[in-house]
Amino acid sequence: MRLDEAEARARLAAHDHGVLCTVHPERGVDAVPVVFAIHPDGFVGVPVDLVKPKASLQLQRERNLAADPRATLLVDHWNRDDWSQLWWVRAKLEWCPDDPRRADELADLLVARYPQYADRPFANMLVMRIVGITAWSAR
Amino acid sequence: MRLDEAEARARLAAHDHGVLCTVHPERGVDAVPVVFAIHPDGFVGVPVDLVKPKASLQLQRERNLAADPRATLLVDHWNRDDWSQLWWVRAKLEWCPDDPRRADELADLLVARYPQYADRPFANMLVMRIVGITAWSAR
Repeated sequence: MRLDEAEARARLAAHDHGVLCTVHPERGVDAVPVVFAIHPDGFVGVPVDLVKPKASLQLQRERNLAADPRATLLVDHWNRDDWSQLWWVRAKLEWCPDDPRRADELADLLVARYPQYADRPFANMLVMRIVGITAWSAR
Repeated sequence: MRLDEAEARARLAAHDHGVLCTVHPERGVDAVPVVFAIHPDGFVGVPVDLVKPKASLQLQRERNLAADPRATLLVDHWNRDDWSQLWWVRAKLEWCPDDPRRADELADLLVARYPQYADRPFANMLVMRIVGITAWSAR
């Protein structure tokens, strides 16, 4: 049921989208679907991009992280018919706002991963360090 | 980009799984994949079931809600290749711990929705009221 850390990290790195949760001072939790890349040093990059339309590029998730640097990234595998296939990985993250070198390396990884990012349409990059990981599998 | 509330509620009710986020006093956010049912009165039922294996039936999500009744349920539609298809709905929830009639009605809805629940294998039912809803679509 519990997956070990190496397996959890491998599944997280291979998954192509997840849910990023941050803490909002009044609302409690904000959660939003994201794409991401994992840096071999144990960092996660979540782009603020110009591909998916947004009302503003100064996103609430960044304001939340400035007030509270803790975040959670969850990836899960769903199968409506066969629940023995279910699994999920949850990474506890800490925002690292001043790491331009890693932000650039994570941008490269995102370009390699998603063809939509071929032209590097990044307005910003959230760099977060993995500080803990938990994973569950139905079998 | 923003979807109106009626459309948001329709998509939420039709989706078959989501991510439930609660506030942990020290860790910040806890997030876990869940199945759910929507009551016509605007309540969400998330079962604690005996189908998916668990280390304990006294789940952290319930302890979190007892300390802070705010929760968030996010459903999202992902398409790796065509990002014009993306959408998500986020419901802000408030835990209603003492509503056995609604818990029972939500159990019926879950049985109707998921064949895995035909034998009503519910150890508990989290009943939460929808207090706000936000939704986004790429087009």
